[in-house]
Amino acid sequence: MQLPKQVQIKEVGPRDGLQNETLFIPSADKVSLVNRLSETGLNYIEVTSFVHPKWIPQLADAVEVLKEIKRNTDVTYAALVPNSKGLERALQAEVDEVSIFMSASEGHNKANINKSIDETFPVLKEVVDGALAAGKTVRGYISTVISCPHDGYTKPEQVVYVAEKLFDLGVSEISLGDTIGVGVPTQVDALLVEMLRHFKADRLAMHFHDTRGTALANVMASLAHGITKFDSAIGGLGGCPYAKGATGNVATEDLLYLLHRMGIETGVNLDKIQKTALYMEQIVGKKLSSKLVAIARGEEQSCEIS
Amino acid sequence: MQLPKQVQIKEVGPRDGLQNETLFIPSADKVSLVNRLSETGLNYIEVTSFVHPKWIPQLADAVEVLKEIKRNTDVTYAALVPNSKGLERALQAEVDEVSIFMSASEGHNKANINKSIDETFPVLKEVVDGALAAGKTVRGYISTVISCPHDGYTKPEQVVYVAEKLFDLGVSEISLGDTIGVGVPTQVDALLVEMLRHFKADRLAMHFHDTRGTALANVMASLAHGITKFDSAIGGLGGCPYAKGATGNVATEDLLYLLHRMGIETGVNLDKIQKTALYMEQIVGKKLSSKLVAIARGEEQSCEIS
Repeated sequence: MQLPKQVQIKEVGPRDGLQNETLFIPSADKVSLVNRLSETGLNYIEVTSFVHPKWIPQLADAVEVLKEIKRNTDVTYAALVPNSKGLERALQAEVDEVSIFMSASEGHNKANINKSIDETFPVLKEVVDGALAAGKTVRGYISTVISCPHDGYTKPEQVVYVAEKLFDLGVSEISLGDTIGVGVPTQVDALLVEMLRHFKADRLAMHFHDTRGTALANVMASLAHGITKFDSAIGGLGGCPYAKGATGNVATEDLLYLLHRMGIETGVNLDKIQKTALYMEQIVGKKLSSKLVAIARGEEQSCEIS
Repeated sequence: MQLPKQVQIKEVGPRDGLQNETLFIPSADKVSLVNRLSETGLNYIEVTSFVHPKWIPQLADAVEVLKEIKRNTDVTYAALVPNSKGLERALQAEVDEVSIFMSASEGHNKANINKSIDETFPVLKEVVDGALAAGKTVRGYISTVISCPHDGYTKPEQVVYVAEKLFDLGVSEISLGDTIGVGVPTQVDALLVEMLRHFKADRLAMHFHDTRGTALANVMASLAHGITKFDSAIGGLGGCPYAKGATGNVATEDLLYLLHRMGIETGVNLDKIQKTALYMEQIVGKKLSSKLVAIARGEEQSCEIS
């Protein structure tokens, strides 16, 4: 089994994890969450989103949160930015890196951004140009890279098409999202075979949702292709505004367990992440669904009886 | 990615899943559960255990349940048998296949069976001899094949040692259990490399617990070695008498999703399994933790917002 020796975790919990919570979480709690995450060894945290509060009311306090967090100089603090208006606010809040997003499938792009794929690039170009001019790096998210709730299976060629355009705009890295969490390792394998014919592994990150329990198996398929960057969310929160307490992103703590146990270094302290996940349970007011947070709660113990 | 075309699922939910439930489940409910499972396309169901009721009071009705189920001639109905006394009851109840069990690690074997590994073989020999004489096949479980809560990491050579002895006794197949659910794919890989130097893949099954979310990743590592038999439990129930509602065995429905989505046939109807998992939630009186049962409950839906 040929695996990378080191992997970078990009923590998206404060944004992707919290964005779908219906109960508004006080800004001070969000700040405290990010501050705790900043002390775990993570070197990348996606803090918030500058999507209009009409769409994501939970993150209406994006500027305030980014301004109030205690910055650790080892950590890159990023935020999602949909357009020039959002960029203006993000720069005002002194974001370190800007994340732009779109989908590989027309149906999801239309539902999410209300534009066709080709209509989206000019909007994103403005954001990338502005961010680069301000001395910021830009990360690109591509959603629905495996399958789309509207269009079905996504062809790897379609992902290559969108990725090429985004790299041309000037993004430094692309995160490939199995947004609805339907992917299996054979599909991830097929996608990466095609992607790696065009792009280097170190410019790609994988973003799995664990909706059907396949996220860690998909991580394994990605590691086998030399992928060394993975997005994850503390507690496994997030993913779907219509889900009642069900899992979303692959949980940072579960991903860390897998990686560390295989001897892959991340620089992140699993124990501190578990403790932060317990704190997160308090601020979101419910149990999180990751396996390692259940263990941290003491619900899982060793088994003596066969 | 080289994968088998077909996989056999061995459903252990009625035994491994239920054995740790503290609230006694009426025999009629157990019978109904097995009868429903018998109509899903499964061809192997471990129904119950003949371990003394003092140790597993939940399955004190083993004879009654085995006698009352409606047998589907396509299904093998198995039960766990610890000793000659248990075999007597199992044969009286007309079990199709007998399962014996022990551990690869001294510490767990001692805690579970109160004997050293070498002291265990004579006891099991009596069971195997008796079962074979009665025209039954025998399956052997080896627990703690990856790690032991008492002894730590289990050497693959130790698993080979125990497996060799069990095959010598006359078992037709051995199920390798990551009893405490700590294993990762590199460890499964190392174990199977060693095992397959001694035994054929079709005489081995893998039995994963999903305690730390690694079960499906471990299934992938096993498939890569040509393993085609997997134990799983409907709903992902079971595994640890000390766990409060946390997951145990890999859930049959989650395993089926992974396999089917990769084009691997099992002959089992996922939809019927999901419905049976919902029924199981009623009889155990709590929510089950598998991903596909959450989807069956309607808690997970496609996500529109990036």
